[in-house]
Amino acid sequence: MTANVEPIRWRGDALELLDQRLLPREVHWVVCSDASAVARAIREMVVRGAPAIGVSAAYGIALASLRGDDVTAAAAELREARPTAVNLMWAVDRMLRARGGDLVAEADAIFREDVESNRRIGAFGAELLGEQTTILTHCNAGALATAGYGTALGVVRAAVEAGKRIAVFADETRPYLQGARLTAWELQQDGIDVTLITDNMAGHFFQQGQFDAVIVGADRIAANGDAANKIGTYTVAVLAHAHGVPFYVAAPVSTIDPDCANGTLIPIEERSADEVTSIGGKSIAPEGINVRHPAFDVTPARLISAIITDRGVLRAPFDESIRRALASQS
Amino acid sequence: MTANVEPIRWRGDALELLDQRLLPREVHWVVCSDASAVARAIREMVVRGAPAIGVSAAYGIALASLRGDDVTAAAAELREARPTAVNLMWAVDRMLRARGGDLVAEADAIFREDVESNRRIGAFGAELLGEQTTILTHCNAGALATAGYGTALGVVRAAVEAGKRIAVFADETRPYLQGARLTAWELQQDGIDVTLITDNMAGHFFQQGQFDAVIVGADRIAANGDAANKIGTYTVAVLAHAHGVPFYVAAPVSTIDPDCANGTLIPIEERSADEVTSIGGKSIAPEGINVRHPAFDVTPARLISAIITDRGVLRAPFDESIRRALASQS
Repeated sequence: MTANVEPIRWRGDALELLDQRLLPREVHWVVCSDASAVARAIREMVVRGAPAIGVSAAYGIALASLRGDDVTAAAAELREARPTAVNLMWAVDRMLRARGGDLVAEADAIFREDVESNRRIGAFGAELLGEQTTILTHCNAGALATAGYGTALGVVRAAVEAGKRIAVFADETRPYLQGARLTAWELQQDGIDVTLITDNMAGHFFQQGQFDAVIVGADRIAANGDAANKIGTYTVAVLAHAHGVPFYVAAPVSTIDPDCANGTLIPIEERSADEVTSIGGKSIAPEGINVRHPAFDVTPARLISAIITDRGVLRAPFDESIRRALASQS
Repeated sequence: MTANVEPIRWRGDALELLDQRLLPREVHWVVCSDASAVARAIREMVVRGAPAIGVSAAYGIALASLRGDDVTAAAAELREARPTAVNLMWAVDRMLRARGGDLVAEADAIFREDVESNRRIGAFGAELLGEQTTILTHCNAGALATAGYGTALGVVRAAVEAGKRIAVFADETRPYLQGARLTAWELQQDGIDVTLITDNMAGHFFQQGQFDAVIVGADRIAANGDAANKIGTYTVAVLAHAHGVPFYVAAPVSTIDPDCANGTLIPIEERSADEVTSIGGKSIAPEGINVRHPAFDVTPARLISAIITDRGVLRAPFDESIRRALASQS
């Protein structure tokens, strides 16, 4: 099974990004001709999802190089675009190490390797699921969050490919509605059984015994296994733990930040109040109301049953399993 | 402190209901001239909140009596309007028992007693809170959900009146956004410190130690203390328990259903998919997507620290404390 959606297209002299702010109402591509345009697209969430951000940033640096722009300045601007996803820093660093060589070929390699790593994550993860499994997922860790295929949704796709009967419940994921707009849409495109719920319904369906497993992505995983992911993930992890349901994080090893000892050190982006007080330009709250808007939260390693990576399934104690995975060859 | 908002006004020959679907953008009153109009307003959520629904239904029966309509038929139609709130059945039964007397006076008494009972709830609840307390609430159990003053927000108002420094975090409460539209608005009207968050942020702020207590309302409380309330309440209760934060339910004894042994017997209304897939008429999900929309969930008694009623604060074992409260005079 190949995902029917692809969020990132390289066109030789420009990067085309599927505008994820407009899905599912409109399929529109934003054309980025230089690194600044790519940085803006990352900042404004035209493209989102840690692996997809990393791949896009790689092409941003390739563009700077092709145009004869200052590659170091481009790298700095891209690195600043969003603070939490470590794949962004990882991809920028890798591109800078390849300077002197063909940077387009290096970005192409990062793109291709991301799809391959998703397929390995999918294969490892599918083995964890029963023949008939209902999965809860949060946000979008799908084809749209990667170069294609997906991490959490890659596991879903691989399990469906393997003939398992998989049903997915998608949290809508306020405030940005990645679940309602992106996960529901991309699974529907692939004909996978998906049911949309609001975030606050998850507890009720856990209580009803609806879920066999939770699978989510990650934006950064600390060396001890603590995982930052879209706001609301921690709540789902607490619910899964309270109901004895396995909670899996699916992510490539490039999402692991070995320099980050634990989750308290992961910077959490605070985004604008507008995204909470309005939906699609329509105001839903009284004017002048105080708002908090942390865009991510941190799930402590003790609530994570396993981390499904492209180098195998990691289990507690995570500091050891993560160290071994990072030391091994992919 | 009197709440600055009142959702229900009796005009002698008609019932005026503040249209809670349009708040906070528009302050519009729906005029109901007969019982069917009141039933429709309850069904379509012009008025919501268990105590407010009960008071409105009482006036609906008074209207039927004034107009010489069939009171038994009116009672049946009102009783069917929404299935979960037991105050509706309670108010209808009480009105039917008063037949032969002055039904307008009886509805007025229900209205007046609701405000008085909220003030008692407020006084009992305020004693449970520290001098400086941050409270998380879910949905709207405020003046707008009652004849005035509120249950959960009545506790907030009473604590502020008593000179305590109270800050409130309001979950937005998807899909209907009662937190964003109603709780944020009515606390803002009264100058009480309120911060709006999306439902899925609550876990993160529990993790940060932000909350000293949770206070919510209830739509029906079973004889064993299990409490049905707006969808998402159960998730908040699990989070509170996991973080050692007290979880209080504030409700008049008329919300207790002694004929309902436990929460599994409480009917949970499933409302339309549209309320999930669109916000203010704007679609936010792909067309044809599967949706679930339970409007309530049940919090088991073991997660409830206390039930704050108009007859005192009830604690575990709830079957006993509830039996004693129901047997006592108000």
